[in-house]
Amino acid sequence: MATGSPLASTADRSGVRSETLRNTNLSTILRELHRRGPLTRSELGQLTGLTRSSIGALVGELTKARLIVDRGTAADGQRGRPSAVTAVDAEHNVVFAAHVAVDSLAVASIGLGGTVHRTVRSQRTRRRLGLDATIADIVQHCNELSSTLPAGCTVHAVGVGVVGLVRSADNSVALAPNLGWSEAPLGQKLQAALTGNPPVTVANDANLSALAEVRRGAAMGVDEVVSVWGEVGVGGGLLTRGELFLGSNGLAGEVGHMPVNPDGRRCGCGAIGCWETEVGAAALLRRAALPDDGGRPALDALLDRSQSGDASALAALRDHARWLGIGLSGLVNLFNPSVVVLGGLFQRMHHVVAEDLQAELDRRVLPAALAGLCVVPSALGADAPLIGAAEMAFEATLASPLAMHGGDPRRTNR
Amino acid sequence: MATGSPLASTADRSGVRSETLRNTNLSTILRELHRRGPLTRSELGQLTGLTRSSIGALVGELTKARLIVDRGTAADGQRGRPSAVTAVDAEHNVVFAAHVAVDSLAVASIGLGGTVHRTVRSQRTRRRLGLDATIADIVQHCNELSSTLPAGCTVHAVGVGVVGLVRSADNSVALAPNLGWSEAPLGQKLQAALTGNPPVTVANDANLSALAEVRRGAAMGVDEVVSVWGEVGVGGGLLTRGELFLGSNGLAGEVGHMPVNPDGRRCGCGAIGCWETEVGAAALLRRAALPDDGGRPALDALLDRSQSGDASALAALRDHARWLGIGLSGLVNLFNPSVVVLGGLFQRMHHVVAEDLQAELDRRVLPAALAGLCVVPSALGADAPLIGAAEMAFEATLASPLAMHGGDPRRTNR
Repeated sequence: MATGSPLASTADRSGVRSETLRNTNLSTILRELHRRGPLTRSELGQLTGLTRSSIGALVGELTKARLIVDRGTAADGQRGRPSAVTAVDAEHNVVFAAHVAVDSLAVASIGLGGTVHRTVRSQRTRRRLGLDATIADIVQHCNELSSTLPAGCTVHAVGVGVVGLVRSADNSVALAPNLGWSEAPLGQKLQAALTGNPPVTVANDANLSALAEVRRGAAMGVDEVVSVWGEVGVGGGLLTRGELFLGSNGLAGEVGHMPVNPDGRRCGCGAIGCWETEVGAAALLRRAALPDDGGRPALDALLDRSQSGDASALAALRDHARWLGIGLSGLVNLFNPSVVVLGGLFQRMHHVVAEDLQAELDRRVLPAALAGLCVVPSALGADAPLIGAAEMAFEATLASPLAMHGGDPRRTNR
Repeated sequence: MATGSPLASTADRSGVRSETLRNTNLSTILRELHRRGPLTRSELGQLTGLTRSSIGALVGELTKARLIVDRGTAADGQRGRPSAVTAVDAEHNVVFAAHVAVDSLAVASIGLGGTVHRTVRSQRTRRRLGLDATIADIVQHCNELSSTLPAGCTVHAVGVGVVGLVRSADNSVALAPNLGWSEAPLGQKLQAALTGNPPVTVANDANLSALAEVRRGAAMGVDEVVSVWGEVGVGGGLLTRGELFLGSNGLAGEVGHMPVNPDGRRCGCGAIGCWETEVGAAALLRRAALPDDGGRPALDALLDRSQSGDASALAALRDHARWLGIGLSGLVNLFNPSVVVLGGLFQRMHHVVAEDLQAELDRRVLPAALAGLCVVPSALGADAPLIGAAEMAFEATLASPLAMHGGDPRRTNR
């Protein structure tokens, strides 16, 4: 036996630390229940490869930790015998998920398993765009939500999606041009300001939307996904093997800053001809000969006109769809996804210009990558960044279900 | 206890199949030795978290299977006591790795641990470019290499890198314009033609080169890497978390077909303004006012002229570097790599135009993604696709070290 290693004494004969093994098994079971919903013990056995007796013991531990609850019995799929049904305890295990957009702020309490319990949204004025004002608003919304939680509820963590570049190492916003932020320590300051200082993780909102669509939306269960969101700016998220592609410090997925037109316009980032200059909201408004700072109301009016068959509105959208197709073709050739999810403006215009978009993809995507490719609108819409932020915030609990329980100060004793 | 499951009786008290666990541990040890070279048992313990007694047993099994060998003892790093050193048996465990390029074919015998034992290269004429002729040449080269293997050597598998789009599901080449191939069942036909019908896996050569640089080259041990190779066409490979990003059917990484110039030239793929039309070999020759079909000799002459300070050659290379920078900027904004590896033509021109390339990146890459980014030339050069093909071919053995041994018909081939 090795000596000197603090964990050596807990290793069993197969050479693996039994604590590590137990945690892995607890994590596997909790993840299955979180992602799939209620399951019988026999279904858990099929999904995890664990024996029925092991599942019984592990389910017991998770129940004792108040992460999961019994839900009676159901007929076993294979033999028709009754099998105990287990589900996450979504009521008593929540995270707060926030979305910091340019014109709005939303915070939701979301239970284990992805149940959105309650959402608070507020409009943001120019006066409320600063980092400190944003933090104060998030804290206030979290306090409102806290007051609605049942007794004995644990707030596991807080997840925040921000319309900007986020460095994952320190949860700070490296750059958010549309908020006027640069090197903003959002995660650290928010954690300090929240009651009980819960863990806070921050990510780009388009990345979180992509994650949400794969976990619970339009691309559920798909491994290889590209998601693009059009708003004022253009965001994106890439998933491979079902997980977000984050890059070396969490900045990956900046699809808006692919160069697509060397003779194009100057982008907010300083470069020339980024995709965002061709498919952002301002570009669409310009194509319709409208002032390019009209924002959401002008876009809504333009989309309404196109629905009524207005020729100039349709022409603008079709030209926009062509540029959407040019950039998407590059993304499909690079990533070979099986599903592309369109969100925001792209989702709203998709049914009007689906044919034009497809024609551009047919012209530009390599045939082998085009075969079997699905382009679908977002299923979660404005909730996507919140649901993605909740998935991110639950990750630590899912990875180590018991690590933060027992004498956990976050469990509210009301 | 569950009944009816064929593996239930092999589960130990922790609920995990002991066969699965044993295989995982054997795999972990063999992978560490394959990637890192010879290690003492105490180093293996630190790397794997397994106990000394477990490592002893597992090393014994791998030794019995003739995958690893004893290498005497070395001083233990921590206490200075002698500790047994273990290494892969590279002599007796090999794969054949092939690279099918436009103008050449190479096949190498490569040992476990990445040792290149012997390489056979041949030039390819137009007459030898067909699928069947290529297969015949690979088989002949494999037979030559077989005759040099020591007694008792196992050929675990064959890996092939091809300059074309490869579908991973069936190891067939979906499209290789520069070879004139489309839907070519290379993997299947090659396996049938080889003595003993060893497992054959096929992949895109630029993807394999990227893998090789991360495992054993310029980006060794780096998790987030973009690699781009300029030859006649332009290929690329993307790695995240140290693994190749393959997409939904193995086609990811087609960096040459990002649209970068909507008013540009028609590409071999049929689209307009793909990156390949701006940074392929033909584009460089056109920039130097040379016939664009001059191939390698013309490129060599041009690079020689630039080394001697020829102004027009330098101007052509600097313009080429600007377009290299435009596309690379998009890739860096999308992937947020920590290292970009330049191969082929890009490697050869890099030292001449490094400043021009960096200037373009400075202009276009988001500052947060530019911070800490390294652009480096390939370290493996023309061997990269072979070394990558060997890594791919060894994967099955590394994942299940004992699965194919014991009564293995491939052992003792002489």
